[in-house]
Amino acid sequence: MVTLTKSRIEALSDGVFSIAMTLLVLKLEIPEVMHHHNNEDMLQQMLALTPQFITYVVTFLIAGGFWFLHHLTFHFVRHVNAFLIWVNLILLMFVSLLPFSAGLMSHLFVHPVSQLFYFGNHLAIALLLALHWGYTRRANLLIDTEHASAARMGFRIWHAAAAFAGTIIVGAMFPMYCWTALPVVLMAGWIVEWRAFRRR
Amino acid sequence: MVTLTKSRIEALSDGVFSIAMTLLVLKLEIPEVMHHHNNEDMLQQMLALTPQFITYVVTFLIAGGFWFLHHLTFHFVRHVNAFLIWVNLILLMFVSLLPFSAGLMSHLFVHPVSQLFYFGNHLAIALLLALHWGYTRRANLLIDTEHASAARMGFRIWHAAAAFAGTIIVGAMFPMYCWTALPVVLMAGWIVEWRAFRRR
Amino acid sequence: MVTLTKSRIEALSDGVFSIAMTLLVLKLEIPEVMHHHNNEDMLQQMLALTPQFITYVVTFLIAGGFWFLHHLTFHFVRHVNAFLIWVNLILLMFVSLLPFSAGLMSHLFVHPVSQLFYFGNHLAIALLLALHWGYTRRANLLIDTEHASAARMGFRIWHAAAAFAGTIIVGAMFPMYCWTALPVVLMAGWIVEWRAFRRR
Amino acid sequence: MVTLTKSRIEALSDGVFSIAMTLLVLKLEIPEVMHHHNNEDMLQQMLALTPQFITYVVTFLIAGGFWFLHHLTFHFVRHVNAFLIWVNLILLMFVSLLPFSAGLMSHLFVHPVSQLFYFGNHLAIALLLALHWGYTRRANLLIDTEHASAARMGFRIWHAAAAFAGTIIVGAMFPMYCWTALPVVLMAGWIVEWRAFRRR
Repeated sequence: MVTLTKSRIEALSDGVFSIAMTLLVLKLEIPEVMHHHNNEDMLQQMLALTPQFITYVVTFLIAGGFWFLHHLTFHFVRHVNAFLIWVNLILLMFVSLLPFSAGLMSHLFVHPVSQLFYFGNHLAIALLLALHWGYTRRANLLIDTEHASAARMGFRIWHAAAAFAGTIIVGAMFPMYCWTALPVVLMAGWIVEWRAFRRR
Repeated sequence: MVTLTKSRIEALSDGVFSIAMTLLVLKLEIPEVMHHHNNEDMLQQMLALTPQFITYVVTFLIAGGFWFLHHLTFHFVRHVNAFLIWVNLILLMFVSLLPFSAGLMSHLFVHPVSQLFYFGNHLAIALLLALHWGYTRRANLLIDTEHASAARMGFRIWHAAAAFAGTIIVGAMFPMYCWTALPVVLMAGWIVEWRAFRRR
Repeated sequence: MVTLTKSRIEALSDGVFSIAMTLLVLKLEIPEVMHHHNNEDMLQQMLALTPQFITYVVTFLIAGGFWFLHHLTFHFVRHVNAFLIWVNLILLMFVSLLPFSAGLMSHLFVHPVSQLFYFGNHLAIALLLALHWGYTRRANLLIDTEHASAARMGFRIWHAAAAFAGTIIVGAMFPMYCWTALPVVLMAGWIVEWRAFRRR
Repeated sequence: MVTLTKSRIEALSDGVFSIAMTLLVLKLEIPEVMHHHNNEDMLQQMLALTPQFITYVVTFLIAGGFWFLHHLTFHFVRHVNAFLIWVNLILLMFVSLLPFSAGLMSHLFVHPVSQLFYFGNHLAIALLLALHWGYTRRANLLIDTEHASAARMGFRIWHAAAAFAGTIIVGAMFPMYCWTALPVVLMAGWIVEWRAFRRR
């Protein structure tokens, strides 16, 4: 297989991530208030946008987190091949889908179908990131890196996948508690990561 | 003619490809469902989006494939000149048209005019890629590359052009079988490529 | 903590800044005039867009100014770590919000709530830029730079924060004079900067 | 003044150019045809989009040409300073305005106001490019370049400015012939350029 430099797949990824993250703002619709409306009316209109704002902030930060993990894995990649580029293109396809999933979520905040779609989108990104990382390790495409930091990298990616899988399972059973599951699983993972990797 | 470094035309191309690919998501309209709708209603609404999702996935992957071919050709390019930049700008004009063609296709899934427009758009990109590659080879703008990999590169680009031309011809005769023609021609080309280039 | 090269956070930032700045144009709605309308009607329609145009120009230039400050700070950064990347992602989240804030402002030009939101958005960017700069100085992530230029950098960032805070305070008291406060505070800061740093 | 590397202003410019050029596609509205409509109806609907398509192609190619001139000038730039960055930010502000101008033009194809706005937008870009180039030459920010290629560069930029100024003047007098003026002035300039610079 041809080996290629990693710079252009990084550039395409940075492009897709930054556009998908910035397009999220288009889901924030400007309230139809008139000039003569008083401040309370307007504040009320802004407060009605709360689900949209929460979805905007959460999605932006999760996407930023995925970008960071993507950045970190490529930090260790020496060069890429055709298989890795296709894994990345499919990963970017799911990243690019985020404005749709976020729009669906902000439209129907507590609904099993939109929750399944939204967290399923994140789960797909996490699993493709895991495939990407697993393949680069096995196909010997990495720079020489110490075992500990490679293991920690893998832990982080699987942690993200577990967090979204857990959120989907909780959401399927108790739609009202779906959003609370996410921070709990994330927090648990960070504690485990802290105990497992900081000590060494 | 002035010879220029290739980095900025690569950057502009990565930009246009990533934006065109990400704008595809804007064609996925969020269904107008209400909060009190039950899950079956909502799933039905999501299933009604099937043509849009198929178009999204297919167009993203084809555009990703073109980006990959574009990436591979530039991998072998030493420097660029004015003619090559104009060929690339016209190529990017057709890439940037993809969200429109995809929107037309997802709106009218089995219609000769939208199929002609959609696959014609892809054919134009493939032909401009062929012109781009043929010119760089003839104008001596390539780095020293072995004959086999240059021949394989050319084969791949013409293979893409043939696949889309074939799909248009089938679509003109049997609109219902237009979409099935694409994977058949692509598969046939991959088998030929495998037999012609893997053996050596 | 892992230390990372700064090139990809710069690429993501350039992407988010350029997209947010370019999306501003989508808030300029094309007037619904007909072909048979005469020139005066059309000019009138264009003049009705004045608040949108002012918001477009002002927001583009402020965002450009923030991009410039961001550029300048990274000019002195040697490498980045996880904390700095998260500060930058949150900063980019506010940059990406600018098309919404600008849309709100151009819709309700002289209204306390939209002014608070619009200038509050800019203030958040300025404060995150200050956190970013303060952290890089303290965490020893900078290249060796002379004291004067580092001090001037910090002055500029705090000057921007002060200008937007001042505009918000004036706007809260006298909504009509909100827009005039911005150039006054900016001008005052430039005079101070000139006297403090040019002399040396 | 601080001297800065040129890579990030190039990255921001490539971002704004590629986004503005790709956003042009959003002005192409998908015709509202139904599935049962026959091919002739549909072709008619597509033909009704002719002004939009012409504007799309012409604007994409002109913007591509400006990007190319911008690329060429930066090819000769050694480093940048604060003034040059602000000139470029204002230039990018007009580039980012192109989707609005193009939307206005495709909506009102033969109307003095839209023509004035559209070609005025291009003229502003050309004049800012001339300011950018004149300043870099005078402020000694260029790499050592032979006199002939620098003179040719200047000729090309002023040629673009003259072409758009000429189109505006013709359009003000004879709106119907506005579009025909552009290729005539461009062609005249290319002949002059050929005779003046090719011979040496």
